[in-house]
Amino acid sequence: MYYTDKKLQWPVRVEKPNPLFARMLQQAIGGVEGEIRVCMQYFFQAWGARGPAKYRDMLLNTATEEIAHIEFLSVAVAMNLEGAPVSLQEEISADPIAGAVLNGMDMRHILSTGLSAYPGNANGVPFNMSHIYASGNIAADMYCNVAAEATGRTLATRLYHATDDPGMKEMLAFNIARDTMHQEQWLAVLEELGPSHLPVPNSFPQAQENQDFNYSFLITTTDGKPGDQANQPWTSGSAPDGKGEFNVKIAEPLGYVPDLGFGRPDTFGQKEQSNGTAAGLVNHVKDTAQKIKDKL
Amino acid sequence: MYYTDKKLQWPVRVEKPNPLFARMLQQAIGGVEGEIRVCMQYFFQAWGARGPAKYRDMLLNTATEEIAHIEFLSVAVAMNLEGAPVSLQEEISADPIAGAVLNGMDMRHILSTGLSAYPGNANGVPFNMSHIYASGNIAADMYCNVAAEATGRTLATRLYHATDDPGMKEMLAFNIARDTMHQEQWLAVLEELGPSHLPVPNSFPQAQENQDFNYSFLITTTDGKPGDQANQPWTSGSAPDGKGEFNVKIAEPLGYVPDLGFGRPDTFGQKEQSNGTAAGLVNHVKDTAQKIKDKL
Amino acid sequence: MYYTDKKLQWPVRVEKPNPLFARMLQQAIGGVEGEIRVCMQYFFQAWGARGPAKYRDMLLNTATEEIAHIEFLSVAVAMNLEGAPVSLQEEISADPIAGAVLNGMDMRHILSTGLSAYPGNANGVPFNMSHIYASGNIAADMYCNVAAEATGRTLATRLYHATDDPGMKEMLAFNIARDTMHQEQWLAVLEELGPSHLPVPNSFPQAQENQDFNYSFLITTTDGKPGDQANQPWTSGSAPDGKGEFNVKIAEPLGYVPDLGFGRPDTFGQKEQSNGTAAGLVNHVKDTAQKIKDKL
Amino acid sequence: MYYTDKKLQWPVRVEKPNPLFARMLQQAIGGVEGEIRVCMQYFFQAWGARGPAKYRDMLLNTATEEIAHIEFLSVAVAMNLEGAPVSLQEEISADPIAGAVLNGMDMRHILSTGLSAYPGNANGVPFNMSHIYASGNIAADMYCNVAAEATGRTLATRLYHATDDPGMKEMLAFNIARDTMHQEQWLAVLEELGPSHLPVPNSFPQAQENQDFNYSFLITTTDGKPGDQANQPWTSGSAPDGKGEFNVKIAEPLGYVPDLGFGRPDTFGQKEQSNGTAAGLVNHVKDTAQKIKDKL
Amino acid sequence: MYYTDKKLQWPVRVEKPNPLFARMLQQAIGGVEGEIRVCMQYFFQAWGARGPAKYRDMLLNTATEEIAHIEFLSVAVAMNLEGAPVSLQEEISADPIAGAVLNGMDMRHILSTGLSAYPGNANGVPFNMSHIYASGNIAADMYCNVAAEATGRTLATRLYHATDDPGMKEMLAFNIARDTMHQEQWLAVLEELGPSHLPVPNSFPQAQENQDFNYSFLITTTDGKPGDQANQPWTSGSAPDGKGEFNVKIAEPLGYVPDLGFGRPDTFGQKEQSNGTAAGLVNHVKDTAQKIKDKL
Amino acid sequence: MYYTDKKLQWPVRVEKPNPLFARMLQQAIGGVEGEIRVCMQYFFQAWGARGPAKYRDMLLNTATEEIAHIEFLSVAVAMNLEGAPVSLQEEISADPIAGAVLNGMDMRHILSTGLSAYPGNANGVPFNMSHIYASGNIAADMYCNVAAEATGRTLATRLYHATDDPGMKEMLAFNIARDTMHQEQWLAVLEELGPSHLPVPNSFPQAQENQDFNYSFLITTTDGKPGDQANQPWTSGSAPDGKGEFNVKIAEPLGYVPDLGFGRPDTFGQKEQSNGTAAGLVNHVKDTAQKIKDKL
Repeated sequence: MYYTDKKLQWPVRVEKPNPLFARMLQQAIGGVEGEIRVCMQYFFQAWGARGPAKYRDMLLNTATEEIAHIEFLSVAVAMNLEGAPVSLQEEISADPIAGAVLNGMDMRHILSTGLSAYPGNANGVPFNMSHIYASGNIAADMYCNVAAEATGRTLATRLYHATDDPGMKEMLAFNIARDTMHQEQWLAVLEELGPSHLPVPNSFPQAQENQDFNYSFLITTTDGKPGDQANQPWTSGSAPDGKGEFNVKIAEPLGYVPDLGFGRPDTFGQKEQSNGTAAGLVNHVKDTAQKIKDKL
Repeated sequence: MYYTDKKLQWPVRVEKPNPLFARMLQQAIGGVEGEIRVCMQYFFQAWGARGPAKYRDMLLNTATEEIAHIEFLSVAVAMNLEGAPVSLQEEISADPIAGAVLNGMDMRHILSTGLSAYPGNANGVPFNMSHIYASGNIAADMYCNVAAEATGRTLATRLYHATDDPGMKEMLAFNIARDTMHQEQWLAVLEELGPSHLPVPNSFPQAQENQDFNYSFLITTTDGKPGDQANQPWTSGSAPDGKGEFNVKIAEPLGYVPDLGFGRPDTFGQKEQSNGTAAGLVNHVKDTAQKIKDKL
Repeated sequence: MYYTDKKLQWPVRVEKPNPLFARMLQQAIGGVEGEIRVCMQYFFQAWGARGPAKYRDMLLNTATEEIAHIEFLSVAVAMNLEGAPVSLQEEISADPIAGAVLNGMDMRHILSTGLSAYPGNANGVPFNMSHIYASGNIAADMYCNVAAEATGRTLATRLYHATDDPGMKEMLAFNIARDTMHQEQWLAVLEELGPSHLPVPNSFPQAQENQDFNYSFLITTTDGKPGDQANQPWTSGSAPDGKGEFNVKIAEPLGYVPDLGFGRPDTFGQKEQSNGTAAGLVNHVKDTAQKIKDKL
Repeated sequence: MYYTDKKLQWPVRVEKPNPLFARMLQQAIGGVEGEIRVCMQYFFQAWGARGPAKYRDMLLNTATEEIAHIEFLSVAVAMNLEGAPVSLQEEISADPIAGAVLNGMDMRHILSTGLSAYPGNANGVPFNMSHIYASGNIAADMYCNVAAEATGRTLATRLYHATDDPGMKEMLAFNIARDTMHQEQWLAVLEELGPSHLPVPNSFPQAQENQDFNYSFLITTTDGKPGDQANQPWTSGSAPDGKGEFNVKIAEPLGYVPDLGFGRPDTFGQKEQSNGTAAGLVNHVKDTAQKIKDKL
Repeated sequence: MYYTDKKLQWPVRVEKPNPLFARMLQQAIGGVEGEIRVCMQYFFQAWGARGPAKYRDMLLNTATEEIAHIEFLSVAVAMNLEGAPVSLQEEISADPIAGAVLNGMDMRHILSTGLSAYPGNANGVPFNMSHIYASGNIAADMYCNVAAEATGRTLATRLYHATDDPGMKEMLAFNIARDTMHQEQWLAVLEELGPSHLPVPNSFPQAQENQDFNYSFLITTTDGKPGDQANQPWTSGSAPDGKGEFNVKIAEPLGYVPDLGFGRPDTFGQKEQSNGTAAGLVNHVKDTAQKIKDKL
Repeated sequence: MYYTDKKLQWPVRVEKPNPLFARMLQQAIGGVEGEIRVCMQYFFQAWGARGPAKYRDMLLNTATEEIAHIEFLSVAVAMNLEGAPVSLQEEISADPIAGAVLNGMDMRHILSTGLSAYPGNANGVPFNMSHIYASGNIAADMYCNVAAEATGRTLATRLYHATDDPGMKEMLAFNIARDTMHQEQWLAVLEELGPSHLPVPNSFPQAQENQDFNYSFLITTTDGKPGDQANQPWTSGSAPDGKGEFNVKIAEPLGYVPDLGFGRPDTFGQKEQSNGTAAGLVNHVKDTAQKIKDKL
């Protein structure tokens, strides 16, 4: 279970409140690269974890930390909204700069929250929990986590660059540092699992997979030539799992032209799509109706 | 631009059509671990690619292949729906096995498509394009791709295990092989980029990130002790990027108890939340109304 | 504005309540082919209508009728849920037929509504208002409406076929009749607009569109031959708008291999994607930081 | 069933069309605090109502009224879009004020609707029917309704404050009045139900709920002290239902450290997560494959 | 910031694992009446809180508790999935009971999570953060919270009734108790705020709202008679806020038949909807094109 | 299966990059009127096609073309983002025009993609695959396709009008031409199917539909008079299907006032909604609990 300390993990400081930066920060809260995503992802991975307990514990520690990140970012949004215009009244809108600021604000900061954060992204799209990956496979989950932290750190650097408020830069320098650590720690798990963790899942016997296509880069260009794709690290040499040699194949259909035939009358395509005659269709439905009446 | 050969990439064969397996296969089409996701993800990464052209070309080849995967899986769904019950009429429902099959079907296979596939998952949730990650950062994108293929291969092995139809097992053995290759090829790019690709993005000067927390595993347990987290590969030794040494810190708040103060009258919280007096609030709104009337 | 008569438009009758048919009926309420969609679509088209008033009035009449459809379908769902099992307790689940019924039910009928309807489809996916098409173009809107009623009538016939309850068949025979009328009435508007309504929008001067590709069927097959597509009604002869002659062209790229070049340092791709040197990147960010400090 | 009067419930008047206010008004149409939500919520509560008929009738009256609200708000949006810029051509964009207006508009008002309303919120997110609460429990539903009208009236006051157009202020004064009434009427039902409606649902025998935690405020702060939470109306004295006395407890785990053990081989986690040996896994899958072949 | 104790808040115990009950429990995790919703709702209300600090602290304590609820419910889902069938192979599907169970399972428990919980509801629909209400108005928020806990407790009682596993009944008795407390505590805040908290927001001067309609129940039935709605607690007597007297009015349009006129040529409705002539339209677009050419 | 030519279908040219036009173009990529929608819609119709093979082939050709459209539009978005502001630093924001541009940008172009396209609309809402219509009925599908291309061409004309960049106008003139062709080709299929394709589906025997309401326009206005709806092409004369004569009826309820009675105790509405006594409810739950204990 969980506990709270009312103090923030980071001392948020905003010198020049900027409602547009508040909108940008929403991406770090409720965007797919944001903190709600990693928080919930690590929690669900932990709560469903099977296998060595140390991975569950690792995930729990970091998931718990992420709540604190959502918290201080939410406070940062509210502080950037201090003094924001909330009205289209003429004095404000007609001023070129104030008007542009107002027009570019997240309208829900005015209308729905009264100048606080909410769990949506920089365009106001609410976060959707389909982005929580917890596959029951520790290696797959670790790659999902590295992906989340790599896009997350990229986002944080863009936010760092987008502001010239020293308090915000300090805060984001902390976020970027934590994203560095989180990238590294998930990679450290993959290193610990060793090269034999590949291909994921390593519990499926590779002998059962199709042996003709498991290390072949398929060329789908119309000229039927590998071009600059020949002799790349993904088309020749040993694969990263050390279990196969890359090669190149020109893609070609192994299959046939599919033909699903005509449709069944009782799926109600057009008559022309069905191999039943029109009369047959009438009878089919009439029979059904009759059967019902007979029973009454 | 793009071309089609009417033949399928894989010769789909179904010996014992099973409408429940049709429902399961939907996850491989329209699930977050499925083929629409990787197809569109690789395309958008290619179409927005900046930097060395060979990466764009690599992505284009594989994205184009993935369309063929969606195609043959869709045909497999339709073939598994051959002969499926489409009615709750008594003869069918009262039969324990047929009834159970009908009840477990994806109802939209009956009601919306007339026994064909559609771009939703095994629970009927339509695929949502927020799952397409294309960050403009090649390393972040590669980790997103490995994550997609690792969860995708895990899904494919579960589907392989779930069926005893030899045709479906053959097809999935091909899918699993391709997922092996795709995992390996994205990892090969990361190997080519070398260890200096970390932390992602490597274009942000690490000197600007907070130096106290970029290699520290934070313990957030209430007992304030690292427990089994001490001396793990993510708490000691060199980090995977070779640029820092892992250490452990007990998490503690660096910040203060946040206080956003009282709300502004014009955000219409309750009076009790505002530092204006009730009378002041009335005046505030009255003034606004008066100003408007004066202008008329 | 709007009024209600507490009586239903249709006298719903259910002889053999069937919770699985209740689940199927949800598609007609909250599916994309369902009644909420047409109701809201016709209302928004009416409320934003510009041009001859008779179209707005037509839309209002039918939109208002559709509320009555949602209403009686909702009652039908509730009546089909009479006597439904709401518990997994052993007596029920262990009975093959009752168990299968329970397992196939929409769980939200038990858990969320207490045996009544809700605005979701047969798989429980809530209806999403992005499906409301109201384009501001009367011809485009009419085609959207025909599409909605054509898929809607197809759905209704599938539901009619799926049940053997006489009361449900009667009700659906009414729905199917109304869908016939609604298809016809939107088509009648298109007939009234005459062939000059094409191509939609007819207010854009066709002389401004690219004249080489506006009546050409493009062949994208790899063999570069039209095959069975030659001499089809869409590849030869006069087009339905009477303004062009169909022809066939083999698709070929008119464009170049795109090259977006290297990325800007301030978008934080990997260093390898940027044309700045690593040192330059450091300086770029340092400069920015310095400028901020100078101002403080 | 339902009827329409072509006249609006409120005579909408716009003196100074403002496309940004049109965007703001969308929140009142398609936002979670908006009119589509209450309209559909009251309808679904009515259509599934069980128990005394007067509640169903009450709900029907107000649901029907709400359609009229969506209608006149939609007209108000269209009227605020009169004269709006629809082009980025230089003359417009380069003008600071016109440019800012254009940039702040809802682009779908230009691109998708041709200057009319649609069922999305102020950020363009389409309304989603998962927000329709109809629980089958009249008291729960009434609280949902008060919640909807309380957030709805708050939204309306913010919109009132945001505009200085007299016509819009008049219209919103009507909306605010109706929201007052609607709040009051749902509260009146709760008053009529009396204090014994608590806790909701009152049909579950409270003796069956855990008696140690049903009136205890749990403190989850790390210092393990109630602090300012002691002696609050929610930590001491009689609870609003008159059936219990509030008290305070320091939260502590009653449970154990969960251990889901190792995973089953047939769920395809990594080998390291499974208690089967690698050889066992191979055999497990091979056996399955063999069984299939034996049957063919 | 936040801390974790690895032990669960409640000692989850499952005697007879039941994968269908696992599916039902998902509603309590990721349904709109579930724990993720209340957890995130209370957190965002706390993080954006303005006004007296004790409300923020109250919200923080309960939000933190709710994480523990999601946690133990997730463990309960995993425990109910012990021994679940994960394959459609003949032995299983052909058994009436086992087959029915398999067919009724949440397929994502098999395919996506490997027998663990995820943040979706009982039909597999992922939770969407648009359900987090945090309005910036403490009274509106409290009603949202009571609504969430009232529907939440109703859900919990239905789950309690649906199972006959003693361990699950014990756990749910705890959940029901906590939902009792949480209902009561939010109501206690409303009591503390006193009757003057109505209508919400109480900071808007009621004199500005339309005085003719703020305490009137509008009858929208076609017979124009109040019927059983006369003399109800919401149509006569003092309103709950003590500031108005209820009355009944027959709804009638105060407005006009709206006429948005003809459309502008540059919004590209059909020609018939525009007041420009066809020739005018051609010229309009030609002029635009010419202007561009002139500049080149 | 599918192939790619690295060259674009259209030679995209941007003279004056405009980040706001980049945002507008997103609607043509990921809007409901956009290219992803038609691409995926035609593919799923083709992959599930039953009946004459020429329709499947037609759909495949055009679906494949649409990938090329998404591709060149994505390149156009990236080219319009060249030189876009990515920072709120003072120099930029304080400039009226640059500031307004920045404020009006799609923030995800800065934060999530690093100046490239993504599969969302002009407001940043990700495309949702529920918009893919593939009904299994060729006529219904053709109407869905005409609807998609009619709204799509309307969108393209609005985009054409919105820009004064010659390169963008050329590109859109190509898109508009292709939308003309695509409208025409789907209409040509409907012409080929002949008038007997109506009403859709034509495979349902019309004798089974309710004969009193299948060609009647229902008047739902309160005055009970057809007004301007009498003698319209949809209220008199032969219907477009040539199978019925239009007539007008005044809508009236054929049904009764619905009464779902009292609720079952085990659905946990309020006691007042249930016909069980309070004591009975207690016993009901107690009995259930006792049964469980007896078994243990």
